[in-house]
Parts: sequence; structure tokens; C-alpha cells
Amino acid sequence: MTDFSVDTVHRQGILFILSGPSGVGKDTVLSHALPHLGTIRRSVSATTRPQRPDERDGMDYFFVSTEAFVRMMEGGELLEHAPVHGYLYGTPRTWVLEQLHAGADVVLEIDVQGAVQVKTNFPEAILIFLAPPSWRELARRLRERNTEGEASIKRRLENARQELARVDQYEYLIINDRVEEASARLQAIVTAERCRPFRQDISGLVEEIVNGN
Amino acid sequence: MTDFSVDTVHRQGILFILSGPSGVGKDTVLSHALPHLGTIRRSVSATTRPQRPDERDGMDYFFVSTEAFVRMMEGGELLEHAPVHGYLYGTPRTWVLEQLHAGADVVLEIDVQGAVQVKTNFPEAILIFLAPPSWRELARRLRERNTEGEASIKRRLENARQELARVDQYEYLIINDRVEEASARLQAIVTAERCRPFRQDISGLVEEIVNGN
Repeated sequence: MTDFSVDTVHRQGILFILSGPSGVGKDTVLSHALPHLGTIRRSVSATTRPQRPDERDGMDYFFVSTEAFVRMMEGGELLEHAPVHGYLYGTPRTWVLEQLHAGADVVLEIDVQGAVQVKTNFPEAILIFLAPPSWRELARRLRERNTEGEASIKRRLENARQELARVDQYEYLIINDRVEEASARLQAIVTAERCRPFRQDISGLVEEIVNGN
Repeated sequence: MTDFSVDTVHRQGILFILSGPSGVGKDTVLSHALPHLGTIRRSVSATTRPQRPDERDGMDYFFVSTEAFVRMMEGGELLEHAPVHGYLYGTPRTWVLEQLHAGADVVLEIDVQGAVQVKTNFPEAILIFLAPPSWRELARRLRERNTEGEASIKRRLENARQELARVDQYEYLIINDRVEEASARLQAIVTAERCRPFRQDISGLVEEIVNGN
């Protein structure tokens, strides 16, 4: 008889990482899916990138100075950090680990370099790659966002090429053709991962069997 | 740059196996989920068990004589076969392989022995264990079905004990508390598995990148 007691007494939270090229729609898809994901917490990244008009400090990002960011790096306060398009991005370590340890699922929305970094330290993290339906469409979305110049867009497209080559390191790939469908697939992935045998508490059922009820 | 062409040119179908103890509700959950699973084909098992009043030959099972079953075994025509509660059950091989090769997903509803047998031959098969919410509830369902005597029910419960010990060989575990919820989880698992990177055709996207569009 298998002993379930060790694995199931304390359920560790699941760490989901949604990443993909800049402009692919990570934020839109995740915001659409979040209300349907049950108990899950969204991690807020720290960045040195300037705040955009529609962004809220402490909600979308923690907007910090480069000096403050470097202090966080030196203090080992970041789970991953990476320079992206000339700015620094990172995930506060303590908050994420506390959530997981308390049994809460966490979702990170980070770039591909960061995702691969976290996977190295947390092989049990679930990596989800969000890809554009076409290259032309990605370029169109970046231009539509219109917050940066053409040189920056070209650099983002070049990065996206390199990022797509790492999709085979990911557990899942979602093509973001329509937001509703991409969101439904993300919801399905979260539900499915919660159905892994080692993540479910069947100790009550096993106990009933052992006691021969 | 990763070469996607080999993996994605021809998509092999996914083989899903739903199994679990006798009486747990495999048929009810699968029938509820099937209309929502997109293009998937349900395999029909062969059995020497007597036909129940509500069952249709060729739809629920192929009801065959023991002699005919043994000839199928000898001819290598079964993907898996196992004696269950005194009768023989098996999955016709050719039909399943043809579907998978043509790119169609297939779902088998079979017992735990059979599921583990198929997994040995097809490590890429996705095993889903359907478990009762409690032991008491499983016993109640078996008695309610009321097609067999108490000795047969006791034997099914004893088998169920042994089957539950193999749940760690499964990819997924669904607790069948309410049919609608169990069905929703099954749907999520099928959707999530279709989101595996190697099962999706992104050759168009990759080609666009290679051509520098």
C-alpha cells in the first residue's frame, strides 16, 4: 500500500509562470482569467521602467529607482531578475515563498529569461508560454501600444524571436488568437495542474480504507 | 533556433485513459464531458461480461463469447486485456492506433490493470484516475446499482482498495464528488494536454520568423 501521508498532509502551493514576448497580451489574458482561477495570488514585480499612464504603483508593478533595485539584488531579495529592453525587472522572493508555503497558488507574469531562471531554482514551477497568432500581429500590437519608438519595437521583435526558440522548455503553450479562448486555456491548465495526484489530499479516503470501513 | 518541423508537421492524437474502481461513475462522468471535449473518439471495449438491460452492443461494449475473446487475444488484436470480477475485458488495438495515427484524440474507459498495461506500452498515454469522495459512498453506489450479489460487491470493494494504491502511477486524479465538477475537471485536463508545446503546430509562426517577416 502506498503511503500518502507524507505528500498530502501539507499541500504546497503551485507556482505558475505566464510569460512570452513583449506585446503578446500577457496582462490582458491573465486579467481576464484571474476571476475564474479560484484561490490564486498574482505576484507584483519590481521594475526600474518608467510608469505608464494607465499603470498603478504597487498593483501593476513596484516602480523603484535603479539604486533601490540594485540593493534588492544584492540583498538576495529577488527570486529572479533580468534586464529587459534597457530596464531591470525582478520578482520579490519572500512574498512568493511565503504564499507557496502557506499552500496558496501563485502566478507570476514575467519575461522569458526570468521564467527560465525561476524554473532552474524551482523545477516544479509550471511554465506557460503565451505566443502571438502571427509575427505580423505581434508587430501590429506593439505599434498600436505606441508607447515607444520604432527602434524599441524592432528590439522587442528581435528579442521575441529568441524567446520563441525556448518554448520547448515550457510545460504549456497558448496561442493568443482571441483573449477569451486564451483565457479559457489558461484556466484549464490551472485546473488540470491542481488535479495532479500528489497535490490532492486523499488522506481521508486512504484512512477509511486502512481502517476497513 | 529550435527546429519545430519534425515534431509539429504531423500531430499524433493523444490517448486519454479514464479509469478507477468499479462503481465510481466513469461512464457517467465521461458521458457528461464528451460533448464538451471537441474532436475526441471514445473507444469501445470488448467483454465477455453479460449485457445489462440498459447497455447496447457495439456502443457500450462489444459483447463477445469467451471463445471469441480468446481468439482476439491470441491474434494480438487487443491493446490491453484483463480479467475483472470474473470476466474478460479488452481494447481493440487496430482501431485505437489508426485514430491516433490520423491525429485524432482517443479516450478509453478501462479498469486500473488495463490502464497500467497500456501505459507500459504507450508511456505518452495520459492516465486519469477517478476516485470516490469516500469509501462509504463507493459501497453505496455499488449496492444502488444492484445488478449483482453482496459477494460480488465485496470483491469489487477489495479490488478498489488495491487500485487506489496505484494512483501515483497516474498523471491526474479526479475526485468524483459531483458529476458536473468531475466532468469540468476532465474537460480541463483534455484542454491542458492539448496545450503541450510539442502537440501544437506553430510551424507557420516559425516560418514567418525564419523568413524575417
